[in-house]
Amino acid sequence: MAMIIQNSFTVKTSGRGTTEITSRIEELVRKSGLRTGMCHVFLQHTSASLVLCENADPAVRSDLETFLGRLARDGDPIFRHDTEGDDDMPAHIRSILTGSSLNLPISNGDLALGTWQGVYLYEHRTSPHERTILITVFGE
Amino acid sequence: MAMIIQNSFTVKTSGRGTTEITSRIEELVRKSGLRTGMCHVFLQHTSASLVLCENADPAVRSDLETFLGRLARDGDPIFRHDTEGDDDMPAHIRSILTGSSLNLPISNGDLALGTWQGVYLYEHRTSPHERTILITVFGE
Amino acid sequence: MAMIIQNSFTVKTSGRGTTEITSRIEELVRKSGLRTGMCHVFLQHTSASLVLCENADPAVRSDLETFLGRLARDGDPIFRHDTEGDDDMPAHIRSILTGSSLNLPISNGDLALGTWQGVYLYEHRTSPHERTILITVFGE
Repeated sequence: MAMIIQNSFTVKTSGRGTTEITSRIEELVRKSGLRTGMCHVFLQHTSASLVLCENADPAVRSDLETFLGRLARDGDPIFRHDTEGDDDMPAHIRSILTGSSLNLPISNGDLALGTWQGVYLYEHRTSPHERTILITVFGE
Repeated sequence: MAMIIQNSFTVKTSGRGTTEITSRIEELVRKSGLRTGMCHVFLQHTSASLVLCENADPAVRSDLETFLGRLARDGDPIFRHDTEGDDDMPAHIRSILTGSSLNLPISNGDLALGTWQGVYLYEHRTSPHERTILITVFGE
Repeated sequence: MAMIIQNSFTVKTSGRGTTEITSRIEELVRKSGLRTGMCHVFLQHTSASLVLCENADPAVRSDLETFLGRLARDGDPIFRHDTEGDDDMPAHIRSILTGSSLNLPISNGDLALGTWQGVYLYEHRTSPHERTILITVFGE
């Protein structure tokens, strides 16, 4: 096991919703020259998340949004934490339920994703944010 | 850190529900000869998932199914994506909420699971599917 | 990639709720002497979990508790598994939804967490428990 390499990049989100980042991660994996290994994708925030989601029909991501919006409703009076608005606490809950890091295998020098798997940054705040993603690849 | 080894296997599911895969993973870990390390289990699909679940009482898995069936209801009219049926979108949601990869520590040449932890492939589609699981073990 | 080191520690919980464990993990990372790598945090239990959560306002964690308590309600008659009480099955569900392991990057000899990210052990049973956490750090 020869190498471990870290990189980071930022994504400017335009408010609540998903941004595909698969190709940005693939680019770093290919640059690393690793043939077999792991790629860890880590989001340094608590009100956005990283998800593996179906990448063919955009309705999947909009249905996911509809579902989460109903599950953790903005302005739900059960929430006390609303420092940054009524989407603040729902954003933390969505982040915890969907997760802020992903581990992706590297095979034959590339991400070993399934045909329909895309990697998405999921912004849970309603306003635009800049999000930092730290990538750690290791292997041989 | 001497080694990284990848393997894959497939599981034929019989429709919605869990299939224990702990022993199949343990077998690959033992074959690797690694004493201390990590075992990454990755599912290359977006409508099934991998969960660590209580392994003693089968009612735990059936209660989990009852819960998820109520949380993301098949045929819920809020969903637009139903290309493959009314269980299609709920399957994607269940997959994202429960996760499609697991990282398991290896200690003393074996998976370091707790007494009551089993690894399960969770099929979320109602019809049978063949699912591919990619295992990456690394360590020394 | 020179090293892989495992350690474990236990946390005595006082029943349902979160206990911050960030500094205990940081201490092990610093002791390891690794500069760049990964820190895997693994909980060997199925009725507690590990979460990355906002670390500034305690209301975030209490709102999260309120939310989960409503989502998977103790004593909900849909649950059959109640061997250890009416919080037993909800605890398994909360554990699966929020996850029992975390992968944290190590940069410059320390955990590369975002400013507002804390690592919490989340006890989902209402009574106190002793929970074992296995830490695997690797890198160079």
